[in-house]
Amino acid sequence: MKKSVFYHAGCPVCVSAEQDIINLIGAENVEVVHFGEDGGRIEEAEKAGVKSVPALVTPNGNVLHINFGASMADVKA
Amino acid sequence: MKKSVFYHAGCPVCVSAEQDIINLIGAENVEVVHFGEDGGRIEEAEKAGVKSVPALVTPNGNVLHINFGASMADVKA
Repeated sequence: MKKSVFYHAGCPVCVSAEQDIINLIGAENVEVVHFGEDGGRIEEAEKAGVKSVPALVTPNGNVLHINFGASMADVKA
Repeated sequence: MKKSVFYHAGCPVCVSAEQDIINLIGAENVEVVHFGEDGGRIEEAEKAGVKSVPALVTPNGNVLHINFGASMADVKA
């Protein structure tokens, strides 16, 4: 199965959701992207439809915005 | 593993998220509760911390609000 991608920015809400998602779908099924470490992927996330973090992009391209940590505008600020 | 519980109210955002969650974590790992069919469980969801639907309550009790379909106030209206 293609992996899901979990985008986040290291905020407490993000980290908590990351643990929950890994527990639910398995670390092997999700790629974790931290914008603070990998800012070059912000554009990719926005093209996928990510409006805020944390967000999970599923293998079929749907975006699940999970709780609310920060907007993408905040991430880029 | 204890099941997660996915609460929703039948809105398009809810149904789309339901399919994504089932694909990601497996139908056998999630109990789906539709408030339109099972309004008696609204109180349980609110006690768990659900503020809007769709929402997933994980086996360890964390609440993941996924995208936004409707507030619990809307659900009860």
